[in-house]
Amino acid sequence: MDADMSSLTICGRSPQEFLDAIENFHGWKAPGIVLGGFMVDWARELIGPDIETDAIVETTHCLPDAVQLFTPCTFGNGWLKVLDWDKFALSLYDRHSLSGYRVWLDLEKTRTVPDLYDWYMRRKPKKDLPLDVLLNAIFTARRSILSSRAIRMKRLYQRKKKGQIEICSGCGEAYPAAQGPQCAACQGEGYFE
Amino acid sequence: MDADMSSLTICGRSPQEFLDAIENFHGWKAPGIVLGGFMVDWARELIGPDIETDAIVETTHCLPDAVQLFTPCTFGNGWLKVLDWDKFALSLYDRHSLSGYRVWLDLEKTRTVPDLYDWYMRRKPKKDLPLDVLLNAIFTARRSILSSRAIRMKRLYQRKKKGQIEICSGCGEAYPAAQGPQCAACQGEGYFE
Repeated sequence: MDADMSSLTICGRSPQEFLDAIENFHGWKAPGIVLGGFMVDWARELIGPDIETDAIVETTHCLPDAVQLFTPCTFGNGWLKVLDWDKFALSLYDRHSLSGYRVWLDLEKTRTVPDLYDWYMRRKPKKDLPLDVLLNAIFTARRSILSSRAIRMKRLYQRKKKGQIEICSGCGEAYPAAQGPQCAACQGEGYFE
Repeated sequence: MDADMSSLTICGRSPQEFLDAIENFHGWKAPGIVLGGFMVDWARELIGPDIETDAIVETTHCLPDAVQLFTPCTFGNGWLKVLDWDKFALSLYDRHSLSGYRVWLDLEKTRTVPDLYDWYMRRKPKKDLPLDVLLNAIFTARRSILSSRAIRMKRLYQRKKKGQIEICSGCGEAYPAAQGPQCAACQGEGYFE
């Protein structure tokens, strides 16, 4: 990695701490979550300290873990929403004012780093883009392949509320009354035998 | 908490380490994730060591964080699937044989611990069930309010595959070609202005 790494911090961590945290949580240093860490780092800087933010990520792949690791927002605490759009973008926003920032992988800028462009657009087989090549490219490129903009949330900012709970007449387990006379599994959605 | 806590481990951790990990990741010692830790602990014991498991949780509330903290399965690495059924249940299964175990909050058994029954069924206002009362009840009850069964996956075990990627003619960002001529946001699903 390049010479000025010694002074670099990402989400308040040294590069080694940052990569260790990723490997520990995600299982390996996936390029998507490493890149995602730089996106979170920028979004947090833009929104400023002391702001309580909620988060939205626009893909189920990798990026949710960057937000969960490097912000207080997790899937289970309801501060992170995940959209299954397969777009490499995330937004952090003030949960009171609904103002925030979106950061995304900018394809036009990414063309200047062919390894990352080919990786993201899957134009080369994985074996031709080893992990160390991709990580070096990400640590060199940093924010130069990203774009950001101020946003104001117009939907999807509501916290999910739990509704009335009933006991399912099929399985005897608790379920939301809004699902109908029985729970989703007893209505045929079950995944096991 | 009761006298035999000194020898207790949950997911390989002492009670204090277990609670610290929860607070650090989830933001507070939410009863749902504490209870979820006992569920993960039992499911892992049933399935045995050295088995690579995928996970399914049947609610978006709290339980996904228990799995993400105490197993290698995260939302972003694709080993955890989350069903929005609002049922307090999780399954761990061998990703090769598709056999595993489901563990769930058993309401009939939970009736024997009125504080937990009233908490889960929301029969009392939150102020009447302080956190320390709930945590004490969970650490005393442990598996006595849970049930488990062996399962075999019949659906939902497939890993999500990324399809063909295109560049959206609306925003210029990458998106899955399968979504149509433009990305979801440009088709009207956008959440910001």
